[in-house]
Amino acid sequence: DGMSMLFVSECMPHTAGFVVGLLFKYLGLMQSGWRYGTSEPRKIVHCFKVGMALCLVSLFYYVGPLYEGVGGNAMWAVLTVVVAFEYTVGATICKCVNRTTATFIAGALGIGVHWVATRFGKAWEPIILQVSVFVFASAATFLRFLPSVKAHFDHGALIFIFTFILVSVSGYRVPDLFDFAQHRLSNVAIGTSICVVTSIFCCPVWAGNELHSLILSNMEKLADSLDAYVAVYLRDDADADADVDDMKKEASKEKLIGYRSVLDSMSTEESLVNYARWEPAHGGFSFKHPWKDYLELGALLRSYANCIDALSGIVSDTKAPAFLKKYFSTACLKLSSNSSAVLRELVVVVRTSAESPKIGLRLKDMCVAVQELHNALKALSNQKTVATETKPEEFSEGKGESNVLPFVAIVQLVTLSSLLIEIVARTEKIVKAVNILAHKVTSSE
Amino acid sequence: DGMSMLFVSECMPHTAGFVVGLLFKYLGLMQSGWRYGTSEPRKIVHCFKVGMALCLVSLFYYVGPLYEGVGGNAMWAVLTVVVAFEYTVGATICKCVNRTTATFIAGALGIGVHWVATRFGKAWEPIILQVSVFVFASAATFLRFLPSVKAHFDHGALIFIFTFILVSVSGYRVPDLFDFAQHRLSNVAIGTSICVVTSIFCCPVWAGNELHSLILSNMEKLADSLDAYVAVYLRDDADADADVDDMKKEASKEKLIGYRSVLDSMSTEESLVNYARWEPAHGGFSFKHPWKDYLELGALLRSYANCIDALSGIVSDTKAPAFLKKYFSTACLKLSSNSSAVLRELVVVVRTSAESPKIGLRLKDMCVAVQELHNALKALSNQKTVATETKPEEFSEGKGESNVLPFVAIVQLVTLSSLLIEIVARTEKIVKAVNILAHKVTSSE
Repeated sequence: DGMSMLFVSECMPHTAGFVVGLLFKYLGLMQSGWRYGTSEPRKIVHCFKVGMALCLVSLFYYVGPLYEGVGGNAMWAVLTVVVAFEYTVGATICKCVNRTTATFIAGALGIGVHWVATRFGKAWEPIILQVSVFVFASAATFLRFLPSVKAHFDHGALIFIFTFILVSVSGYRVPDLFDFAQHRLSNVAIGTSICVVTSIFCCPVWAGNELHSLILSNMEKLADSLDAYVAVYLRDDADADADVDDMKKEASKEKLIGYRSVLDSMSTEESLVNYARWEPAHGGFSFKHPWKDYLELGALLRSYANCIDALSGIVSDTKAPAFLKKYFSTACLKLSSNSSAVLRELVVVVRTSAESPKIGLRLKDMCVAVQELHNALKALSNQKTVATETKPEEFSEGKGESNVLPFVAIVQLVTLSSLLIEIVARTEKIVKAVNILAHKVTSSE
Repeated sequence: DGMSMLFVSECMPHTAGFVVGLLFKYLGLMQSGWRYGTSEPRKIVHCFKVGMALCLVSLFYYVGPLYEGVGGNAMWAVLTVVVAFEYTVGATICKCVNRTTATFIAGALGIGVHWVATRFGKAWEPIILQVSVFVFASAATFLRFLPSVKAHFDHGALIFIFTFILVSVSGYRVPDLFDFAQHRLSNVAIGTSICVVTSIFCCPVWAGNELHSLILSNMEKLADSLDAYVAVYLRDDADADADVDDMKKEASKEKLIGYRSVLDSMSTEESLVNYARWEPAHGGFSFKHPWKDYLELGALLRSYANCIDALSGIVSDTKAPAFLKKYFSTACLKLSSNSSAVLRELVVVVRTSAESPKIGLRLKDMCVAVQELHNALKALSNQKTVATETKPEEFSEGKGESNVLPFVAIVQLVTLSSLLIEIVARTEKIVKAVNILAHKVTSSE
């Protein structure tokens, strides 16, 4: 009838719009997925590994003897593989150990509580069970909040709660509780073994390796950012517009903002350190590799990045006139390039875990550069005095209206120099941390 | 015999040491747990809520009709409560919606795939099932890597994989697959309803509220830190040692390093924003509250904190002589107190979502303070010129050996001023972001 026709004609555009919107969203997802997949092929390999492990574990459904062997509860093994198979070996081992241990402890405790409850008779049994569920679940949930437990045993606490309830309460329905608990444990053990074996022997991704490369790439990003910012600030404005093609611009912009990803890497670093500590010796890393020291190094790199961020604020409105910049550019460029050279040399030290012969030289160069910048600042303060008295030729361009140097520009340049000197101080801290790390690595091997 | 005695006597100290170590670790955990529990009573309440919800869901084991009603599979409901009950309402709703939707979709797909597989005969069935498991599990694992999926649908993808395998492969063993899938869905639905109801109606902790308070407390921390650093830098060294009792020192140290927790809050903010968007209207927050804008505000607060961190490096080695500090202290203190006052006023704006009449005034004060600091810097550059020429009395203390002002001190003070001015610029950005936020909030109500 008329009303429904009107309704349909009014709704149709909305529906069509909705469908088209959904389609675009889907296409967008496909596109971002493709980009992601081509840029990170190891993630694709991981997906295939998960698929393989799941096919392997689902054999427990198809093969009769296997199915009977696990008491018809193969789904626990499947669930274990789905949940515990992580991207890195360390994370997988951590979850698997957590899961197996928690299942064992909770199963034993559940059987114990059930045994106690049955002593009190049928009427009291549910009450005692309920109280124990409440107490243990609350306690385990509380433990999950504590940072030290959360970092390593979060998954274990979760599985403890579940298995405890499953075993203790199932006793009310299942005839042979011991058998039930044993099947649950063997299922979990099968699942975790498949996870660990697949993740270690089939294109392994080591958390330790990832952490190592993350720290190295962060160091390189910081060195690039520092160089890029100082270069952008000190370049001639005439040069800036001319003969810089778009690709170069894009590359330099990427370098400029590289430090930002360093600022955001704390949580990644922390979880990688936690997982790396679960991993066996692999590649160049022994079992006792000082992973915890990477956290400190990461924090120092972030404090370095903070300085670059403060610097970026000053660079974003470059007010200093060209002649002043030129005056400073030699000292500033030398200092920044020396500081970034030290950082790049540290990359070599961390990569090889051997002291680099060049690092002492680079440090000396850096100190010389700091002294030169100091001298330049000192000379500026003298020249300024001169400027107000005698107005020499070389400084005449900058002061059309007043007889002192444009003080905003000076403030900016002094700040730049001072931040560069602060960056040098933080670089020295990083050098110390890297030396301690390298020393620990060589003594742990 | 002798050998075993030797073995025991050698091992005993180790074992005793191990046991004592374990005991100390346990005591340490107890202690940190007690401290944590007393400082965060709401977490304790959450633990009791989890215990209660689990007692509620385990009734499905004890009450006969309920047990039969869910097909003897009450463990899925228990597992749902264990896994999906999160601290905040938003996180719980997010996980519950994910879990229910994924179970439904994967169940339907699993039945479909099983139906197709059975058409090909008994020999081909396992092969087709295995291939489909491989394809769907790999695809879902890949989706979990995409940031947009990871933020909202990570748990859903996991549950999709598990339910799909469970339903499609169980068809090989279970006679009535449709019944099986339906029971799984109803169990998950029961578990999620218990989670959502308990988490909303029993002392709810809203992610939105948490995010709101986090941003507010971060703003206050930054204001405190800025004040504290400038005060520490500009105070007289004579004052520093005298009449400052330990408690005061402790409090001021806490204020000093307050900005660090702002630097580390990114991941917390991101997850809270993701969860807050799942929450219904509550308190002063409508359903369309612009939660995403909090992310931008958080990023601006972090860039502010970066500047304070750069400042901290300069303050840590206060070399400037007292007379120079005194000369600058009025302007610097005024600027920093004005900047922090703006931040504290913004706290009021964000809290009430209404434009504060004072904010304009405070901004004006801040601009005046910037101008005064500029003037002080200008005057310094003039006075320095004078100083080299006439050596006036007031500057004579600082230069025992040379006839210019200690230039390191000047560089430091200029940098401090310049960083303060940069902080003002970032404060202005925060003001803009808060105004946009407040505008969106009032228009969304």
